[in-house]
Amino acid sequence: MKILVLGAGRVGNTMARDLAKDGEYQVAVADLSEAALDRLADAPSIQTLRADLSDPTQLAQVVAPFDLVVGAVPGSIGFATVKATIECGKNIVDISFFEEDPFLLDDLAKRMGATAVVDIGIAPGCGNIILGYLETVLDKVETYTCLAGGLPVVRTWPYEYKAVFSPSDVLEEYVRPARFVAHGEVVTLPALSEPELVDFPGVGSLEAFNTDGLRTLLTTSKVPFMKERTLRYPGHIEKMRMLRETGFFSKEPVDVGGAKVRPVDLTSKLMFRMWQLADDEEDLTAVRVTVEGEKDGKRIRYDYELLDRYDPATATTSMARTTGFTCTAAARLVARGAYRRPGISPPEFLGRESTCHLFVMQELAKRGVVFRQSVE
Amino acid sequence: MKILVLGAGRVGNTMARDLAKDGEYQVAVADLSEAALDRLADAPSIQTLRADLSDPTQLAQVVAPFDLVVGAVPGSIGFATVKATIECGKNIVDISFFEEDPFLLDDLAKRMGATAVVDIGIAPGCGNIILGYLETVLDKVETYTCLAGGLPVVRTWPYEYKAVFSPSDVLEEYVRPARFVAHGEVVTLPALSEPELVDFPGVGSLEAFNTDGLRTLLTTSKVPFMKERTLRYPGHIEKMRMLRETGFFSKEPVDVGGAKVRPVDLTSKLMFRMWQLADDEEDLTAVRVTVEGEKDGKRIRYDYELLDRYDPATATTSMARTTGFTCTAAARLVARGAYRRPGISPPEFLGRESTCHLFVMQELAKRGVVFRQSVE
Repeated sequence: MKILVLGAGRVGNTMARDLAKDGEYQVAVADLSEAALDRLADAPSIQTLRADLSDPTQLAQVVAPFDLVVGAVPGSIGFATVKATIECGKNIVDISFFEEDPFLLDDLAKRMGATAVVDIGIAPGCGNIILGYLETVLDKVETYTCLAGGLPVVRTWPYEYKAVFSPSDVLEEYVRPARFVAHGEVVTLPALSEPELVDFPGVGSLEAFNTDGLRTLLTTSKVPFMKERTLRYPGHIEKMRMLRETGFFSKEPVDVGGAKVRPVDLTSKLMFRMWQLADDEEDLTAVRVTVEGEKDGKRIRYDYELLDRYDPATATTSMARTTGFTCTAAARLVARGAYRRPGISPPEFLGRESTCHLFVMQELAKRGVVFRQSVE
Repeated sequence: MKILVLGAGRVGNTMARDLAKDGEYQVAVADLSEAALDRLADAPSIQTLRADLSDPTQLAQVVAPFDLVVGAVPGSIGFATVKATIECGKNIVDISFFEEDPFLLDDLAKRMGATAVVDIGIAPGCGNIILGYLETVLDKVETYTCLAGGLPVVRTWPYEYKAVFSPSDVLEEYVRPARFVAHGEVVTLPALSEPELVDFPGVGSLEAFNTDGLRTLLTTSKVPFMKERTLRYPGHIEKMRMLRETGFFSKEPVDVGGAKVRPVDLTSKLMFRMWQLADDEEDLTAVRVTVEGEKDGKRIRYDYELLDRYDPATATTSMARTTGFTCTAAARLVARGAYRRPGISPPEFLGRESTCHLFVMQELAKRGVVFRQSVE
């Protein structure tokens, strides 16, 4: 079976290596950046293809010889690459976290008989799988809360943050209004709202705040209370709120000495230099998923907690590990025909099939990504 | 006697009214802004003149009929207006706080027989006068410390600051390396350095940090330990340091989508909206001058503390009161011939003449600007 990974960034690179290790698949990676592809030079079994993935014609040519596509492009071109892949009649497992509603592609995917699993990373991703699974286990699910953050181990003033994925996608999280569910209704609050300190064993006190991370769960789940919150080191939110409220994240062009400039473009240029994760810089991923509900008339509460760290042996970031290994687990399920639902599948659909839930958790655990479960 | 005030901003406006009240002077105000001049419409005894003060030819024409000039233009054109005024052979008393070394004009002023008093506001200004005075009183002065801040009464997130004078001059203070004197040597530290909490009676805890405010004292005084520090509400410094270190105050053009932009220009555009003191918004001025030395073999310490507030009766900001009334006191000294030293005089020169020191303190006190002195 031939698998093509779209995007040779940190996550794409990690996924290609992980899939190639099985020995079962012929793996190729496509990217526009020669430099990104060069970082796979030490893995001769992985074929590299140079292509502009934002061009649907080039994309169609590139994916044609493959049986399965794994998407790891930036969010901004994610929707278009998933669409183009489906149009080629190929199955795709995607972690690009594009902004658009993936269900806009549901009819197309069904028509093409393609299985398209989207948002299948750590968060969104694992939280949805856990919720999907528990919805089948419990008689009633009342609350779902997912806290997640990817952070540098070394905290450096002023931001104490490094972007473990696309920094402009991080900024988007700080701007886009955050939707959550209360009493069965969708409620919208500003991003970065409701800061709250959370103690995370092994990491210390973190600050949680609202981000728009529920995504597909807003329509696929009937749980009456759902929240997704992001974790950062305390103080980061205040700084981001200050920049946002001053207008530094604005996309409205401003006249500066005759030139029209979008403030966010200058801010990105200045700030992202300080957000850059160095090549051997260690990161960590902290996730806590809490689900409360009822089973046989009794109240029950599940906590899943993950603390994952950078792998120095392979120089793999924790974000690439947690996101990439979730996605490759799903890719294996699709490759083996163990998950074959035509149409768009967010991760909660996989979670509703208990074999898929277990398989993903096991594949993660084999690679050291272990959710500690506790039940009360 | 005819006095011309250059600049019809908050401080120029206040000074013109203050001088006109004496009934001794014919007072005129020149400014390029019609709107600024219109704010003097209710004071018919004050003549208004529309002129581009940044143009030396226009300036020379405007000042020609006057006996004394009072300068209150922005710092960026301050040096040029003082120079042009001296070239016309006129005396000038100036609070524009320009960046250039005023002593570059000393020879010119002496040659023209002009008395030019510069930096004669609250800080620099009153602190220098107090130090100049105490240098004549004490046998030895060992330390001089001046803490000063102009602040809004109402503290609004995120900056808890409003610019009580030109906001770009405030930004300059946050960027320009701060020089102070230790063991008789000039020491340079970054602006915004050495934050320290200071309790200020009637205001609460403020944060003091180094700014480059000693100016002329660096060369005119032999005191071995001298420091000038600025006061803000706690937290402001951290935010300013973050913006500065990220590059938002930089004057180096950055390429943003093909356009060359100086980050400081965009920052000013975005941030100064939030720094704008509303028309009836109350401000306060907090100053603490500490001088330590020896007299008759005994150690002695003087503290001068000022807390001045917005005057609602005349809608005059505290910054305009404290700065403007110091300057008009000096203007009266020059107008009456009570201070007539040719050449450049920083305020410490006035302070060394005890009658001048007393006169300024009395004029301020008459207007409610009272330094509380304590001696230990």
